[in-house]
Amino acid sequence: MPASLLDQINDPADLRKLSREQLVQVADELRLYLLETVSQTGGHLSSNLGTVELTVALHSVFDTPADRLVWDVGHQTYPHKILTGRRERMSTLRQYNGLAGFPKRSESPYDTFGVGHSSTSISAALGMALAAKLKGEQRQVVAIIGDGAMSAGQAFEALNNAGVANANLLVILNDNEMSISPPVGALYNYLTRLTSGKLYNAAKKGAEKVLGVSQSLLDFAKRAEEHVKGMINPGTLFEEFGFHYYGPIDGHDLDVLIPTLQNLKKLPGPKFLHVVTRKGQGYKLAEEDPILYHGVTRFETSEGLDGNKAKSTAALTYTQVFGDWLCDMAVADDKLVAITPAMREGSGMVAYAERFPTRYYDVAIAEQHAVTLAAGMACEGLKPVVAIYSTFLQRGYDQLVHDVALQNLDVTFAVDRAGLVGADGPTHHGAFDLSFALCIPNMVIATPASELECRQLLTTCYQYPGPAIVRYPRGSGTGSVPTPELDTLLIGKGQLVRQGQRVAFLAFGGLLATAEQLGEEFNASVANMRFAKPLDIELLQSLAKTHDYIVTFEENAVAGGVGSEVERALQSLNLPRRSLRIGLPDQFIEHGDMVNLYKSAGLDKDSLRSRIQQFLSY
Amino acid sequence: MPASLLDQINDPADLRKLSREQLVQVADELRLYLLETVSQTGGHLSSNLGTVELTVALHSVFDTPADRLVWDVGHQTYPHKILTGRRERMSTLRQYNGLAGFPKRSESPYDTFGVGHSSTSISAALGMALAAKLKGEQRQVVAIIGDGAMSAGQAFEALNNAGVANANLLVILNDNEMSISPPVGALYNYLTRLTSGKLYNAAKKGAEKVLGVSQSLLDFAKRAEEHVKGMINPGTLFEEFGFHYYGPIDGHDLDVLIPTLQNLKKLPGPKFLHVVTRKGQGYKLAEEDPILYHGVTRFETSEGLDGNKAKSTAALTYTQVFGDWLCDMAVADDKLVAITPAMREGSGMVAYAERFPTRYYDVAIAEQHAVTLAAGMACEGLKPVVAIYSTFLQRGYDQLVHDVALQNLDVTFAVDRAGLVGADGPTHHGAFDLSFALCIPNMVIATPASELECRQLLTTCYQYPGPAIVRYPRGSGTGSVPTPELDTLLIGKGQLVRQGQRVAFLAFGGLLATAEQLGEEFNASVANMRFAKPLDIELLQSLAKTHDYIVTFEENAVAGGVGSEVERALQSLNLPRRSLRIGLPDQFIEHGDMVNLYKSAGLDKDSLRSRIQQFLSY
Repeated sequence: MPASLLDQINDPADLRKLSREQLVQVADELRLYLLETVSQTGGHLSSNLGTVELTVALHSVFDTPADRLVWDVGHQTYPHKILTGRRERMSTLRQYNGLAGFPKRSESPYDTFGVGHSSTSISAALGMALAAKLKGEQRQVVAIIGDGAMSAGQAFEALNNAGVANANLLVILNDNEMSISPPVGALYNYLTRLTSGKLYNAAKKGAEKVLGVSQSLLDFAKRAEEHVKGMINPGTLFEEFGFHYYGPIDGHDLDVLIPTLQNLKKLPGPKFLHVVTRKGQGYKLAEEDPILYHGVTRFETSEGLDGNKAKSTAALTYTQVFGDWLCDMAVADDKLVAITPAMREGSGMVAYAERFPTRYYDVAIAEQHAVTLAAGMACEGLKPVVAIYSTFLQRGYDQLVHDVALQNLDVTFAVDRAGLVGADGPTHHGAFDLSFALCIPNMVIATPASELECRQLLTTCYQYPGPAIVRYPRGSGTGSVPTPELDTLLIGKGQLVRQGQRVAFLAFGGLLATAEQLGEEFNASVANMRFAKPLDIELLQSLAKTHDYIVTFEENAVAGGVGSEVERALQSLNLPRRSLRIGLPDQFIEHGDMVNLYKSAGLDKDSLRSRIQQFLSY
Repeated sequence: MPASLLDQINDPADLRKLSREQLVQVADELRLYLLETVSQTGGHLSSNLGTVELTVALHSVFDTPADRLVWDVGHQTYPHKILTGRRERMSTLRQYNGLAGFPKRSESPYDTFGVGHSSTSISAALGMALAAKLKGEQRQVVAIIGDGAMSAGQAFEALNNAGVANANLLVILNDNEMSISPPVGALYNYLTRLTSGKLYNAAKKGAEKVLGVSQSLLDFAKRAEEHVKGMINPGTLFEEFGFHYYGPIDGHDLDVLIPTLQNLKKLPGPKFLHVVTRKGQGYKLAEEDPILYHGVTRFETSEGLDGNKAKSTAALTYTQVFGDWLCDMAVADDKLVAITPAMREGSGMVAYAERFPTRYYDVAIAEQHAVTLAAGMACEGLKPVVAIYSTFLQRGYDQLVHDVALQNLDVTFAVDRAGLVGADGPTHHGAFDLSFALCIPNMVIATPASELECRQLLTTCYQYPGPAIVRYPRGSGTGSVPTPELDTLLIGKGQLVRQGQRVAFLAFGGLLATAEQLGEEFNASVANMRFAKPLDIELLQSLAKTHDYIVTFEENAVAGGVGSEVERALQSLNLPRRSLRIGLPDQFIEHGDMVNLYKSAGLDKDSLRSRIQQFLSY
């Protein structure tokens, strides 16, 4: 192999000076570099291996950053980061003060739009394209969206608008036949039909001819392309939305990608390019199991993730506690059905899906639908469990209010990743669910403080014949092993775990452990409150009567969190007390390791100790 | 005309005993009855006139309530209510303790799913159909959704899931070429193509032949139907989602509707029936201006709404204040762009849309997209104003958090209908926006207390170069006429409007007037706080230092509302005070007139007086 080209690329402009052959070399080097760095730092792997050539092609054809690339979700943008001046910093990926795992506007002018959740790219890109139109700027705007992300409603809302907005917008469907979970839904079947025929394979090789490279061939290409489209299988669905559909083309072949993009750049209006890529491309282990290699910890590339197994001493996670509970509860009650918006693995539902396929519903990335579907099922006497991350529930908020809570329907929400999550950063920290759910009438909201209690509260909320949330954090807790029983706890009842004096610590969830440790130091009374709604008024009353100071602990924004409800209850009881609300501060928390994040949020033990000392000194 | 048949229908079972000719008569009587009652009570008119025949056909063909009809949005269900035992109660429509203006599960077993916001019906119906499948029940489930509601992402999420779920589900597209605003978007254009050809007109009359009435013709019909579909214009978009598409058929012709539904009932799997209706059908004035007659006040049917004009002495509404401001600000700043999710009329944007068509974006019913589109525009230096109702912002919550606030982008949200709205009821009361927005970092949130201040705060938040919300209530306020200037106020600064002693009333928004009146009675200090975020800490501090009691006033849920933030601030200042949070109680508020609603929420002056008396007595 010739001398390294990648090392010389500090900017996409450098890329544009290279020949096609050199670009192929850059792509190969990029893939290798990616594999090396991600195996050292951990992070998203499969999706990034799949976008290497597409990224090289985009930055070599488009005049970035003047032209705008809007990546959907963003966990496929490591190649983009490497090519846009951040190669050297890849060793800091997803670490505190290091590169973010997603595009981030403050990190680079090439990151045109911050992402994390899926399916926003077409909306954002359309906004940019309409702005360019209004301002009379000639820039190109490109949204790159995966087939999984296309299943979310917002993508369709954007297509519906873009198709008639008469703006210069190119939507590239990065079709890797993958969501994070295996793909589902009618759209997936449709895309499979588009890419499965013999004609696609023929067209793949013929694409350069069809969308010819020279300007003079353009008119011909347009005509021919329509003809070929008719032959191979028109992307009618996208055409019906007012887009010109091109493809499908091979997303790993620069000789197809580059001329196609060069031609599309010259065409006005809304264009839709269907690119077929393979998650994990070029790393055999990831190609064979792209779901396993979706998000990885540090590993040896020669051994793969298998090499980590021996070293693994991972404690039981809350996610696993939920997954086990779900199976056990499903055995005990055949009315249980479980719904996931495309997060079978992340939500710990693999075993359940295998054992109870007729009661398992993966609805694709579709949180709004997931919540209302559950409501419809509850109307018919089933007992749905919706497994959803805290931040993804933000996508189904109106449905939670109207379809579930207003109708007081029996739906249980297993809300994972409630609290700080670490390396995924601000789009994934579950910082707001208590604030946005506590205000909803009829809700029961449980905040388990340990794995054992998580199982008990899941059972409790499941048995409760109305809307209920169990919120639990990412990762492991105290290590308390759940018992096999399906025990319940009393709704709205907490537990005094330490008797002290003068100050009472009220913990909601995982911070109980910290509260207990600090409780020893301050000789505080400590209560495990268990429920954010309804509050244990009796316990509150008895604590307020015997203590001068109240400190609440929650891993949620302090604004509108449960600390607020505690104070309101105390005022209603005519027992107002000096109180301190410990929770996430009113700022977005960055990505990084949990130790640093807790420090930056003031939730580490040292920070808490001094805050409480100061509080008690008044 | 023969003796009244409608009077004899107390239940859809009565309908099923009638001949086709008698059903036609019922439909005619129903339309007349509808017009009579709605002109007396006010309510939604155009949409209900459009669904008369469809409703008669559905209840005569399907075995309701065992078969489930799920109406989308629900403002077209008056005929359904009349035919399902609620005819006599139509005079109580939308009144306190009277019939709801939307389907409501607690009101009737025929109301299978409560609605208010659009585009949930397919999700809910699929949930019911999947439940029937799991339980081995043979019931039919039908979702009836308008073409406007089809533009929202959730409808596509549901189609994507339903197309592969292998459940018995019939989706009826009630295509009246209408949203509440004029229809927009690629989907609308597509539907227009489906229904505009000569072949549709031919097929309309031939439908009965195609979807023959007798069982023996069914197989033939299926074959023929596919053939005819190919001829007239296949509903490929819906077919691509895995549905069998039928139609379009005339939704006002029972001789087409009834046999079509009878046949579809026999077909398994996901089916999509495209029905063309006309909003306002049968009442000339409403046919000519269905938008004007969408929601009406009481009127004389002979005169129409024109007859009300002479009597009208309506005060300027907040909505109008916004509309006027928007035009003035657009003149002053050509970077202003305005976005509405299909609420041009309701949000007061008719004049703006006419005067500034290139800076006006109606994105269809698509709140998620609306918010992210604005974010994309803001990235390019435009200054987007998103006009949205408080409850509809719930649909774009994740986008508000991630796409706008996290990126600290310059988007202004004009949040209308914040607080109780009256007759539309719990799905439309803006009860939660302060709770779900106060927890979001970077936000500025203004709560104008008068029309004049609304204009000033719109200008202030618009000039603020970051994410901001101005929340204002439905209807009129104090009557303070805005001045033509584009004045600003200081961000985070309130105003002391009355100096009293011992107790301070802190008002956020429209309840200031009540607070001032009660302030006289209690000799309280009264502050118009103006901003829920950031709070006026200086004012808070000075009031807390000189008063023993604090009462906060807000028309938002007390849980997580701004009262909570006031208490937190006082605790942080080491100035905790006895405090009372006045706001919406932790329960869903029903529909009705504002006087009764305020009473039921404990927000009328008498209730407040006694609550404050009791509070101050401790």
